[in-house]
Amino acid sequence: MNQILFPDSLVERREDGGRIVLVVMDGVGGLPHPETGRTELECASTPNLDGLAVRSSLGMMIPVKPGISPGSGPGHLALFGYDPVRFRIGRGVLSALGVGLELEPGDVAARLNLATVDADGRITDRRAGRPSDEEGRRVVAKLAAALEAPEGVDVVLRHEKEHRAVLVLRGVGLSPRVGDTDPQRTNVPPLEPETLAPEAERTAALVGALLRRARELLADETAANAVLARGFAAYERYPAFEERFGLRARAIARYPMYQGVARLVGMTAEPPPKSDEGVAAALAERYGAFEFHFLHFKYTDSRGEDGDFDAKVAAIEAVDRLIPRVMAVAPDVLIVTGDHSTPSRYRAHSWHAVPVLIASPWTRPSAATFGETACRGGDLGIFEACHLMTLALAHAGRLARYGA
Amino acid sequence: MNQILFPDSLVERREDGGRIVLVVMDGVGGLPHPETGRTELECASTPNLDGLAVRSSLGMMIPVKPGISPGSGPGHLALFGYDPVRFRIGRGVLSALGVGLELEPGDVAARLNLATVDADGRITDRRAGRPSDEEGRRVVAKLAAALEAPEGVDVVLRHEKEHRAVLVLRGVGLSPRVGDTDPQRTNVPPLEPETLAPEAERTAALVGALLRRARELLADETAANAVLARGFAAYERYPAFEERFGLRARAIARYPMYQGVARLVGMTAEPPPKSDEGVAAALAERYGAFEFHFLHFKYTDSRGEDGDFDAKVAAIEAVDRLIPRVMAVAPDVLIVTGDHSTPSRYRAHSWHAVPVLIASPWTRPSAATFGETACRGGDLGIFEACHLMTLALAHAGRLARYGA
Repeated sequence: MNQILFPDSLVERREDGGRIVLVVMDGVGGLPHPETGRTELECASTPNLDGLAVRSSLGMMIPVKPGISPGSGPGHLALFGYDPVRFRIGRGVLSALGVGLELEPGDVAARLNLATVDADGRITDRRAGRPSDEEGRRVVAKLAAALEAPEGVDVVLRHEKEHRAVLVLRGVGLSPRVGDTDPQRTNVPPLEPETLAPEAERTAALVGALLRRARELLADETAANAVLARGFAAYERYPAFEERFGLRARAIARYPMYQGVARLVGMTAEPPPKSDEGVAAALAERYGAFEFHFLHFKYTDSRGEDGDFDAKVAAIEAVDRLIPRVMAVAPDVLIVTGDHSTPSRYRAHSWHAVPVLIASPWTRPSAATFGETACRGGDLGIFEACHLMTLALAHAGRLARYGA
Repeated sequence: MNQILFPDSLVERREDGGRIVLVVMDGVGGLPHPETGRTELECASTPNLDGLAVRSSLGMMIPVKPGISPGSGPGHLALFGYDPVRFRIGRGVLSALGVGLELEPGDVAARLNLATVDADGRITDRRAGRPSDEEGRRVVAKLAAALEAPEGVDVVLRHEKEHRAVLVLRGVGLSPRVGDTDPQRTNVPPLEPETLAPEAERTAALVGALLRRARELLADETAANAVLARGFAAYERYPAFEERFGLRARAIARYPMYQGVARLVGMTAEPPPKSDEGVAAALAERYGAFEFHFLHFKYTDSRGEDGDFDAKVAAIEAVDRLIPRVMAVAPDVLIVTGDHSTPSRYRAHSWHAVPVLIASPWTRPSAATFGETACRGGDLGIFEACHLMTLALAHAGRLARYGA
């Protein structure tokens, strides 16, 4: 248990202590620009972050393990103190969280693809010609309206993006041990949902019936005339953040995915602000009602995935301008970091270590700027992200001594 | 299983990706010269390695765990991505691999010492007066020619060096759970081979009979008139490198030990080149037939063990001159490191961290030289060697994202 609920089982908590603000600049870590040798963060003009760095402990964080590029789910779980190697989120569940569905323990979720099959039932396009979001939404709404829920089971269908959708089954005795129906190739028919464990027999039969009925309902569609399912996963609530760390916690995030991962560990998800300024502004509201505040900024990652170095620099600078609003609540511990790197040259989440800054009265500062090079030489060294919460609690004066 | 076969069970591999070349300068890590404060690697003139460093991610690797000095077996297993704490090689098996014996699963191997016993059967010299290699080889050949194999069991005896030899038993139902007959002290008789587990009864009896017969056959020898056995171990094939990492792999190494460890994980061992130049030259041959190429250079370790600082510097420089031949194949990922440190002042394998360099398009360079001091400030930080393969796969674009 030690390793699962570290540090909970190792040291006792103190009853009081400071408030912690965690600012996540999604995918903030970068790679050096070929001409300047400086990363996006190092090229950005960040007077406020630099002002923090000069009085902070700095370091580099490995999101999961060396060489592992995490998705948003594992990336954030690690920041919240949940070892992402032990706490795995099934793909279906992550998609359901991503579209904002509120899951209950026992729910089984899967990813759906709208697809095209020919007259012989063979898949000709696993993505139904990549419909627009509007077109995808229309087809999924048509299905959702007509699909009859089997006895004793609730069925939720939600469009995600383009050809992608999410299926959630809610009922007693469901099992996620159902095989993908997506064969991952064309010119073959969809697979029958396989029963991967005896207890999944009913669920597999139920999924098979739903997908057959979907074929009938979509028979008049030219492109999206079938549905493929994969990544069946059951939702289970993780040990609660508040119970583990003694912190009432909330998420201020604009996008469902990040609210979803926060809810997975029992955080309160605030209503999503309409702008990044709104995220920063929301911190001051109800500040006293929580001891842990998670603020999420998305565009550093988005611009990295776009492959636009300058736009990512600008996204970093935009967050920097919001730092004074964050500082206005005078957090006892302020952490600024990312859930992973998204170098604009790499155009995707990467495995590279992420700069981290912890500002509190108990720091050993080492540099006057916030960036990969400065953080590499910092007091915190290079450490796995799932240790961040222990450091946060320590800086907040919330951990007892280990041993006498 | 997770931790045993990490990252295999954590993330999926991509089907394609780049080719990886791993250059091992055996024992390359050193200690500072008392006069200059620079290590062997830092004193060496290495323009080619420095040219790589300036565009590489640098770091320091802990071969096994802090403070642990590894032998060649665990040192290389870690580099190949096999946690050497979990994957243990029995001493007998390692010796058999070291003399170039090809083992089959179920074979039981042990280390032998030629020894001297007195008229009362008490050991007077556990090393038979340290015979020369020639003399040792003569005695072992005499034994091998005359020793009768028991019913249903093949017996292989192979001279290793001086007083040392290797015994391999091949047959059905053998067990390595046999106690050492070497009491590790003199003035006592050799121990009877103890049965350490019920299933080893027959093997222990068989070993006892072989060693008694050896005494008879060596009765006319003045020094080497007895044989002591220790380190009984069974050979088991490890999960295959190709299966775990999706890489067809080969070893280009001049010495049996390194070919043996590579074969242990299922790599193809190329015919041993006659020179280090030959090792580098062999890389270009059949380059396209493998995705992973392990090149081994021995003399950096040998000169360290000799305690000759300047000769180790020269050995490093000799490898540096071969780097352009390695670069000629244009590897997608090139890694240069060692399996452990062999500081010439220490004259042995040591526990000190080892410099490592990873050159690929996805690096964060930090220094213009390759050496302990430069690598200490590198982007990779200090990490355990068994994570190197995960990093290599990431740099080669061969790992999928972990979680969505």
